[in-house]
Amino acid sequence: MARVEYPAAVVALVAELKRLPGVGPRGAERMALWLLQHKRAEPLALARALEQAEQELCLCERCGFFATAEHCPACDETKRDASVICVVEQPTDVLPMERSGSFRGVYHCLGGRLSPLDHITPEDLRIEPLMRRAKEGMEIILALGSDVEGETTAHYLAGELRGRGCRITRIAQGLPAGGGLEHADELTLLRAMQGRRDWNES
Amino acid sequence: MARVEYPAAVVALVAELKRLPGVGPRGAERMALWLLQHKRAEPLALARALEQAEQELCLCERCGFFATAEHCPACDETKRDASVICVVEQPTDVLPMERSGSFRGVYHCLGGRLSPLDHITPEDLRIEPLMRRAKEGMEIILALGSDVEGETTAHYLAGELRGRGCRITRIAQGLPAGGGLEHADELTLLRAMQGRRDWNES
Repeated sequence: MARVEYPAAVVALVAELKRLPGVGPRGAERMALWLLQHKRAEPLALARALEQAEQELCLCERCGFFATAEHCPACDETKRDASVICVVEQPTDVLPMERSGSFRGVYHCLGGRLSPLDHITPEDLRIEPLMRRAKEGMEIILALGSDVEGETTAHYLAGELRGRGCRITRIAQGLPAGGGLEHADELTLLRAMQGRRDWNES
Repeated sequence: MARVEYPAAVVALVAELKRLPGVGPRGAERMALWLLQHKRAEPLALARALEQAEQELCLCERCGFFATAEHCPACDETKRDASVICVVEQPTDVLPMERSGSFRGVYHCLGGRLSPLDHITPEDLRIEPLMRRAKEGMEIILALGSDVEGETTAHYLAGELRGRGCRITRIAQGLPAGGGLEHADELTLLRAMQGRRDWNES
């Protein structure tokens, strides 16, 4: 007796969904089921969004953010201060930073971070374009993650940027907003303590 | 100063991905980023799989499994025992059951389970088609989840099926394979105890 198997179209859809980051075999099956069965699922709307994105979008040659052929939303903003560059890992890091309302300069998205274990070397990141942008008198803010790869990448960039007459800064590490000391790990407390500032200054 | 925003095509793609079950705003952004940026991501392959699935697939009128217009893989298998129907919640429950190699009858997928809180009533499930299939002398195995909704659905179905001359059974609840007693919750142990069988029988 042959086992019951999914029709080929289901197998193909599950295989494609399973390739998405963070989606496992069970999650992909659940998504396929929903797409095929739920009244309000519109698989063709997702298909169209994928096609349109593939067709219209590229990464900005200059800053690495999502852009169309004519327009990069992060570079075109003429009122921004082009002498301060905030370096982030991914284009998706730009919007959280914007939402914080704390930055009025321009961005540079590396497209990842150094990770020898994953074979991500400086050549895989948009470091060369950053070097071309970094001019004397500018401030380069390193806004990378506080994990090992983020720290490694920040150190590498600081080394590369040295001697170009830029002010190199990094965003602070410390207690997250609204978090009590009892939930903070030791390294966070160490960083918070090291980064302490005079009361007047804050 | 206007905030940097994603181009429209990114916003549209993130919105569609966010509608998938189990995908939140951050996950959808991560998926969109991957689809747009990763060398080996093939957004058009996913788009094609969606279109093909939408075009080719339906749910089998008879059993509720994934089917094409000509063919239901679960119904067409002529060597299966059509006098035993295994009732499951979703089409995706069929393959795990098949993999277990424990069943040689046919399936009936309800398309969900009763859940008053989610406004899922008997009319929303494929119960009427099950009643049409349930004939005298058949065995109907209720293979539903062991959570509240699964139990509720099983009780409802047992009531509806009563008086039709079918043997109504349910799959056993108990200790999961490979799990020690120390990891089992009280209800699982209660069910395992209630379902105990004589040694000879097993």
